[in-house]
Amino acid sequence: MRPFLFHNPVKLYFGQGSLRALNKMLQPQQKVLVVYGGGSIKRNGVYDEVMGKLRELQVEVFELSGVEPNPRVETARQGITICKKENIALILAVGGGSVIDCVKLIAAGALIEEDAWAIPTQKVKVKDALPFGVIVTLASTGSEMNNNSVITNSETNEKLDWASGYVFPQFAIADPRYTVTVPKDHTVYGMVDIMSHCIEQYFHNETNTAIIDAFATGILRTMIEVAPKLVAEPENVVYRETVLHASTMALNGLLTMGVYGDWGSHMVEHAVSAIYDIPHAGGLAILQPHWMRHFVDVNPARFAKFAVDVFAVEQEAKTLEEIAYEGIDRLSAFWQSLGAPSRLADYGIDASRFDDIISHVMAEDTPSAFVDLQASDVRAILEKSL
Amino acid sequence: MRPFLFHNPVKLYFGQGSLRALNKMLQPQQKVLVVYGGGSIKRNGVYDEVMGKLRELQVEVFELSGVEPNPRVETARQGITICKKENIALILAVGGGSVIDCVKLIAAGALIEEDAWAIPTQKVKVKDALPFGVIVTLASTGSEMNNNSVITNSETNEKLDWASGYVFPQFAIADPRYTVTVPKDHTVYGMVDIMSHCIEQYFHNETNTAIIDAFATGILRTMIEVAPKLVAEPENVVYRETVLHASTMALNGLLTMGVYGDWGSHMVEHAVSAIYDIPHAGGLAILQPHWMRHFVDVNPARFAKFAVDVFAVEQEAKTLEEIAYEGIDRLSAFWQSLGAPSRLADYGIDASRFDDIISHVMAEDTPSAFVDLQASDVRAILEKSL
Repeated sequence: MRPFLFHNPVKLYFGQGSLRALNKMLQPQQKVLVVYGGGSIKRNGVYDEVMGKLRELQVEVFELSGVEPNPRVETARQGITICKKENIALILAVGGGSVIDCVKLIAAGALIEEDAWAIPTQKVKVKDALPFGVIVTLASTGSEMNNNSVITNSETNEKLDWASGYVFPQFAIADPRYTVTVPKDHTVYGMVDIMSHCIEQYFHNETNTAIIDAFATGILRTMIEVAPKLVAEPENVVYRETVLHASTMALNGLLTMGVYGDWGSHMVEHAVSAIYDIPHAGGLAILQPHWMRHFVDVNPARFAKFAVDVFAVEQEAKTLEEIAYEGIDRLSAFWQSLGAPSRLADYGIDASRFDDIISHVMAEDTPSAFVDLQASDVRAILEKSL
Repeated sequence: MRPFLFHNPVKLYFGQGSLRALNKMLQPQQKVLVVYGGGSIKRNGVYDEVMGKLRELQVEVFELSGVEPNPRVETARQGITICKKENIALILAVGGGSVIDCVKLIAAGALIEEDAWAIPTQKVKVKDALPFGVIVTLASTGSEMNNNSVITNSETNEKLDWASGYVFPQFAIADPRYTVTVPKDHTVYGMVDIMSHCIEQYFHNETNTAIIDAFATGILRTMIEVAPKLVAEPENVVYRETVLHASTMALNGLLTMGVYGDWGSHMVEHAVSAIYDIPHAGGLAILQPHWMRHFVDVNPARFAKFAVDVFAVEQEAKTLEEIAYEGIDRLSAFWQSLGAPSRLADYGIDASRFDDIISHVMAEDTPSAFVDLQASDVRAILEKSL
């Protein structure tokens, strides 16, 4: 492994009733900007529960709603304007990864003079951020326990990842009850996303990574066990709890101790969904198995280990490549069994804008760690995904 | 699982060359108290490397050496006196768990007026502590990444655990090179200790703990893989690295997300080593398998799961109890194969002071989580361990 720094200062309050942590985290008369999405929290009661708590704690509440599924810089700008004008002390994200990612940009953008888009484009270096907390309502991105953010600019069709040591949430409240009413499709997308994060981080070029290998494959096996049960019984809060726990652990830095994750599939997917606005994990379910098949030859032993440790693929009388492909097939079949899409055609996407997608991927200056994506690789992966 | 707070703010700088992190962590002219043990760091070059770095960074160095293997409150008192007199800004623990645990008490004790023993006895509540960092030289206790401390009072023959949210190290530097010269016996003790921590936390009374189960058994399987290799090749820095990584992860809060660990074996061992001053993990290697056998009936399914997930015990045509006992026998045999003791007689301990030991255990007011130890249980475990 590589020398590394692991530092994750987030206070994770996990479990039923965790909203009471706000008692410690907020002060009376504090100005709090509550940020949320399209209103599902109003339909499922989370909004009322949170607002009731905020009234009880006598904080001064401001609101920003309407954060998009692929959160836009335009929306973050609205939040930044409120923070600057009202002198907001703390931002509270109530939602899934989109809302949390948007709040990260609001928190950092509120303390710079430049336009917020300068942050994801790395024209401005983040040196501070407003404190913010999270009440997570979707098990998926793990954004509640990390310092990553993905933001879309609909004018330029760009969807950019950025990160800063200043945008760890101060606290995250993860109550599985708040995820019980997530509809089936988004529940499945979330579960694909969690597994995809483990896979992106599992494929690297370091050796001697036994502990993180065990953590990643342990989360994946847990997901394989619980995901079908949750699909069959979506209101089961115990299954929701396991999946929510998996999501916070899958992308909080633990799985990249000593390695760089690859994130090639994510880069291709971000390019696709920047153009077509499809659900992120829907795209991943299609693209990642093809990324894997395309690159088996880079390290067949690693892919075979994945197959054995995650899917218990039998090894006897098989080549490493055979074991590897069987593991990938099992993964793809598993995601389909949950109801995830398997072809770009499922979203009505054809090859007509492949050149645009490839240009987007190539424009990203982050090299993948396991194998550096070339335009020809991206094209091959896209074509197999049709 | 139970609702929980996971919060571990330690900056873990892990890997070869991590000492360079001091560049960020220390300021010129800062008064730093360097605390270490019996002088092994002077023989193996770690002392010179650290002191060279401190000179380069132009900090003002004070020293306290001679921290005992079971660190004593008397030694912590010396450190507290230096901190108060010299107005120390930061303490740097260079050593294993003993040194780190002692520094935790120095850091907290330096900011109270009462005698330091008031902290482990909980007569004074810790409300602040001097900042401190760790350079860990032994893979064992995980103290470098947690807020626990064990302190012995040789006047009262007490060995007490205590913890506080204020005694997380500010940073921990974990360079496996610094552990390469650890002698064989302490290397083995360290590895037993790491595995023992996983086991203590694995036995609890909660359900729906898939993620932490996977993490705990993943660390245990990693140890089973690497420990014999390290015993055969003690200077292999790659094996040292894996074991050091396992030790930091085994007791940093991850494995108790949503549960209370049991720690019954640790309580019995602390009582034994408070009286006989034997190595902590030597005691654990003897006592823990007998604790496990004694309590199989409490939850045979849990012990059987342990056997299957950690030692891949075959399940066919066996009762849960048979699987459980086979797993415990495998654990005990594994520790013996590394060279760990298996009987109290190996340390010349007979039954003559069992009453004292039992009184010590019963005096601890921490109930075990998996099963609350009674005097008769402790006696039975001790007798089987003779």
